[in-house]
Amino acid sequence: MAEAVRHDKTARQLRLLSDALDSGRLGPVRRLVNTLSPAEIGNLLESLPPGQRTVVWGLVDAEDDGEVLLHVGDEVREGLIADMDPDEIVAAVEDLDIDDLADLVEDLPDTVIDEVLKSMDRENRERLEQVLSYPEDSAGRLMNPDVVTVRTDTTVDVVLRYLRLRGELPDHTDHLYVVSRRHQYLGRIALQALLTHEANTPINELLDDEQPAIDVTESADEVARQFSDHDWISAPVVDDNNILLGRITIDDVVDIIREQAEHQALGAAGLDEDEDLFSPVRRAVRGRMLWLGINLVTAFLASSVVGQFEGTLQQVVALAVLMPIVAGMGGNAGTQVLALMVRGLALGQVGASNAKVLLWKEIRVAVINGLMLGTVVALVALAWFQNWRLSLVIASALTINLSAAALAGVLVPLTLKRMGFDPALAGGVILTTVTDVIGFLSFLGLATLVLLH
Amino acid sequence: MAEAVRHDKTARQLRLLSDALDSGRLGPVRRLVNTLSPAEIGNLLESLPPGQRTVVWGLVDAEDDGEVLLHVGDEVREGLIADMDPDEIVAAVEDLDIDDLADLVEDLPDTVIDEVLKSMDRENRERLEQVLSYPEDSAGRLMNPDVVTVRTDTTVDVVLRYLRLRGELPDHTDHLYVVSRRHQYLGRIALQALLTHEANTPINELLDDEQPAIDVTESADEVARQFSDHDWISAPVVDDNNILLGRITIDDVVDIIREQAEHQALGAAGLDEDEDLFSPVRRAVRGRMLWLGINLVTAFLASSVVGQFEGTLQQVVALAVLMPIVAGMGGNAGTQVLALMVRGLALGQVGASNAKVLLWKEIRVAVINGLMLGTVVALVALAWFQNWRLSLVIASALTINLSAAALAGVLVPLTLKRMGFDPALAGGVILTTVTDVIGFLSFLGLATLVLLH
Repeated sequence: MAEAVRHDKTARQLRLLSDALDSGRLGPVRRLVNTLSPAEIGNLLESLPPGQRTVVWGLVDAEDDGEVLLHVGDEVREGLIADMDPDEIVAAVEDLDIDDLADLVEDLPDTVIDEVLKSMDRENRERLEQVLSYPEDSAGRLMNPDVVTVRTDTTVDVVLRYLRLRGELPDHTDHLYVVSRRHQYLGRIALQALLTHEANTPINELLDDEQPAIDVTESADEVARQFSDHDWISAPVVDDNNILLGRITIDDVVDIIREQAEHQALGAAGLDEDEDLFSPVRRAVRGRMLWLGINLVTAFLASSVVGQFEGTLQQVVALAVLMPIVAGMGGNAGTQVLALMVRGLALGQVGASNAKVLLWKEIRVAVINGLMLGTVVALVALAWFQNWRLSLVIASALTINLSAAALAGVLVPLTLKRMGFDPALAGGVILTTVTDVIGFLSFLGLATLVLLH
Repeated sequence: MAEAVRHDKTARQLRLLSDALDSGRLGPVRRLVNTLSPAEIGNLLESLPPGQRTVVWGLVDAEDDGEVLLHVGDEVREGLIADMDPDEIVAAVEDLDIDDLADLVEDLPDTVIDEVLKSMDRENRERLEQVLSYPEDSAGRLMNPDVVTVRTDTTVDVVLRYLRLRGELPDHTDHLYVVSRRHQYLGRIALQALLTHEANTPINELLDDEQPAIDVTESADEVARQFSDHDWISAPVVDDNNILLGRITIDDVVDIIREQAEHQALGAAGLDEDEDLFSPVRRAVRGRMLWLGINLVTAFLASSVVGQFEGTLQQVVALAVLMPIVAGMGGNAGTQVLALMVRGLALGQVGASNAKVLLWKEIRVAVINGLMLGTVVALVALAWFQNWRLSLVIASALTINLSAAALAGVLVPLTLKRMGFDPALAGGVILTTVTDVIGFLSFLGLATLVLLH
């Protein structure tokens, strides 16, 4: 019940904004919007239907435009960019960090990309090209080349003087990186250490060389795992030769973790996590059709199994009444096993070494659940149709189907993972196909054997 | 396909460890385990069956025990604690930060809690009691009372001298907090600012009073939202009177975000996110029974609808063959809408102000999808059963059920949220009940009208 009493700031902002929009006075809307952080503005824009969205987007301070574009899904972003003049776009993105610009650049119109590149100095242009040369979802794409480096052969005092001269540090700088003459990564110095040690302390006494650098080709998922396993705020990125290329910071990692979760939640329903809540109808229809089409094929597969037993169904119509229970309960039980397996695989907790133990445990759980639920179903069926043979058939079929569900719940995600597919996305459809087919087959098959002979 | 080629460190460690365990030589296992971070050890322990888990847990360095306990699910934690002597437990937890200790303390045996409290000095005991006095999942429980504060009427130089005297700062300190004489929160000073400004700069010139402090009663979800919307590393926590009580850091927020995602993914399948992968069979059976029981009740509800049409089914057995398609496709389409709505609600993007627009959009999408899929199904059914009336019936029923699915997909989560329930948890069961009932009712009802008269 706690959910309800929590004040939900976004929803409240949305209500206020909606009222202000309805009143038609844009002054208050502008003031309201520009008290928000870019992430909050992005969230708000996503929650507005297209017409209102365009109005509010026009009221956002120009200096926030770039950051806001970073904080909306691809589909919404596309629409917002379409609402902007080329000049506005160039102005919005030219002050972004290199890693953020790399994230946006491919969504910009070609002519605008040229303008943006022209507006950058050569060093930044080269940095951007370097970041873009790494595959999406790799450490190389997440890194910001803007890092503060020092040498070992110096003291706290000298570093402090250098920092005072340099002025502002990049956001989320918690360490300075120590590099060799050839720019190889040697270790890091905590800002904390600089603050708590005497001025004449040699830097190499403060050097922490325990945190391994991230390889530039590492996957974003692996980067996120390392950050959360080691409680890092930032981490250095190096190439094959240990040359320091840049730095990844926790704020980007938080975004990755959120996106992973969304990808999994929406992907399991066959949706793209970048789908706009207010997608145009045609686009939404197209976006959902593939998954529904796949499900339709599997539904026909299950139907064709039922079709094999038309004769049996004709003679015992109660079977048609009860058969959805056997198929559905198998799907439910299998979904539970699948959910546990998907998490285990995502965390690297499930592999060849323990799959057998897991499978054996799940089969035992399924048989016990099958017998218990089967007894309940059998008793209800007995009261309903007064046919103890039918009750026996449904209890047996339920136990068989729950066992099949356990088997599929363990093996389907393992097999998908081994084949290189994401078990969170395709697992559900395959699992319920198995439980539908086995459910109808076992129930109607047993019924044909037991009731008709 | 990228998934497959990614090196999965945890899985590799697991394999190495498993081989080492199989060989029976514990020396290599101990060395392997103790190269890992506490979070990685926790993950590894969760991936081991009970027997191996006990062996490996015994090999973990005693100084890591406390941190490891923080990084496993409740059910696994319970088992690990049961494997420890009271003395070991006290030693493991006494060096933890107050917020971490608060997280663990309720899982400890009562006698051990007394020991732990006795081993603490009075200040820390009072701090622990204060943290424990706030509800679980509130900012008060997440905060660490260990903060570094300074006054405004001083200079960079004086603060630097103070920090050198003080020595080490708490983990993830990126700001010092400025408080009044009465310990009221006034603002913060970035470590960066201390490093980049001249020694004689007055502290109040560096004071950043823009970041609002977190209210100690705020929910953990809201805390996480603010951190990720503002890219914070740490944030001050205050009470009603603006007295500074402690500090929340990004590492705890990352854990919250991960837990939210797990809670949602497993909760949708009626599972507790703290379920151990290797739960004892009895416990696993119990853990899954409630959800399966609820699903059984809804399955009987759907069956009873089918039961109303026994006469119709007897005369047209093809209906029994085709009816799972109508019900199933409704469930699939509704699940898509539900997934979008659950995300929208979690982000605060959906509310009274835009629900109508969304509903109208989803109904249009559903009708178009229904007509398109209905046409396909009708053609297949025509080829199969050579009955154009039957084809007409199934196409109409499918369109009706997809529309019902859209309606339920939008309204069920909104209603659950308004009633204070988590739409991610209960939404799926209710939705598929609606689509099963409407699916069977519309298909068999229309068939009775069209085919039997």
